[in-house]
Amino acid sequence: MDSNKPDPMSQFAPTERTQVQRLPKRGVYNREEVYRILDEGLVCHVGFIAQGKPVVIPTGYGRRGDTLYVHGSAASRMLRTLGKGEDVCVTVTILDGLVLARSAFHHSMNYRSVVIFGKATILEDASAKLEALDILTEHIAPGRWKDVRHPTEKELQATTVLAIPLKEVSAKVRTGPPLDDEEDYTLPIWAGVLPLQQTPSAPIPDDRLPREIKVPEYVQKYSRQNR
Amino acid sequence: MDSNKPDPMSQFAPTERTQVQRLPKRGVYNREEVYRILDEGLVCHVGFIAQGKPVVIPTGYGRRGDTLYVHGSAASRMLRTLGKGEDVCVTVTILDGLVLARSAFHHSMNYRSVVIFGKATILEDASAKLEALDILTEHIAPGRWKDVRHPTEKELQATTVLAIPLKEVSAKVRTGPPLDDEEDYTLPIWAGVLPLQQTPSAPIPDDRLPREIKVPEYVQKYSRQNR
Repeated sequence: MDSNKPDPMSQFAPTERTQVQRLPKRGVYNREEVYRILDEGLVCHVGFIAQGKPVVIPTGYGRRGDTLYVHGSAASRMLRTLGKGEDVCVTVTILDGLVLARSAFHHSMNYRSVVIFGKATILEDASAKLEALDILTEHIAPGRWKDVRHPTEKELQATTVLAIPLKEVSAKVRTGPPLDDEEDYTLPIWAGVLPLQQTPSAPIPDDRLPREIKVPEYVQKYSRQNR
Repeated sequence: MDSNKPDPMSQFAPTERTQVQRLPKRGVYNREEVYRILDEGLVCHVGFIAQGKPVVIPTGYGRRGDTLYVHGSAASRMLRTLGKGEDVCVTVTILDGLVLARSAFHHSMNYRSVVIFGKATILEDASAKLEALDILTEHIAPGRWKDVRHPTEKELQATTVLAIPLKEVSAKVRTGPPLDDEEDYTLPIWAGVLPLQQTPSAPIPDDRLPREIKVPEYVQKYSRQNR
């Protein structure tokens, strides 16, 4: 069994802070569905407390099994703070569309978001770090790791990798058409959904790339869906 | 002069926490450039402290002049917390592309992000709330406000709107090709940028929409660029 694919029946146990309060029917605790969102997303927003105040920083990430990985320079303030075992909240949001209702009040967005609470640990072991960098690289572009020059010992030392356990996690999902008040459906106002997606355009080869090196298929046919 | 367009020379004064520490050349403090990012983005990530721990929640927003607006149900835990004048950090990130270097180490992303620190205030006055909802609706789809049914008094009461002053703000921007180590440029590895953008697909009319109501031009020709 692929350890990266969770048991489809596995559910996160809601805690006081992951229990979706507002519009609870949008709450999702199924591990498979949560991981599908994490695997499709590209950027997470990492929240932590610095000098008593909240800070939110965007960064890349990767997942394998029940662990989320985040990395950066060993000099990064965020990573140094989180490496001390401070509380962290990591949020991944995928925007799927604009929901244009007949009333201003019922305008909304279709989205899928995951919120993770926990504490991070720093990976110290070089082979664990190397594996995490494989995961982080493959998250950006599956197929890439086998093609690139792997990190040197010096590069590994200059990189801090954090592991965050996927234990206290929930997702929130909105799909479908606008929901207007019954009496507004007769108004002569266009209503519906404008779907949005993150799409690639033509790859831009580096200026110093020799012409004979062709664009790899995983770049040419890049897609975040069906991962 | 359009009060929504800042003086092109206006700069945010960096503070201890908005001074970009890592890769300071990516730091942007020009008000016009920062507002262009805010005006193009659709979702912000709101960071705050609840019961001593960080929480990051995605939500829509809007900007006019030097104020950012966020809204939601009066029952929302986030809005109730922030309405008490707690510290908040709001981050907006636009992903522009994947930066595929020859080495795993130099992989990166092209992005534009804005980080806002401050305290929110609740709008109490009904006309100020109404104006903010105009701004929030126009942020999603410019041209929409004049077409839709405006909020009733009851809807206004059920909506909490927060205003966050754009004072302590910075942006971070990465553009351009991968930057590899000099000795790696001879490696036979494809390198370059895969541009990404949020693109709309065909609008989906609501099932209950009469056929004679046509898709408005601001939906048909929707674009986040050149706003």
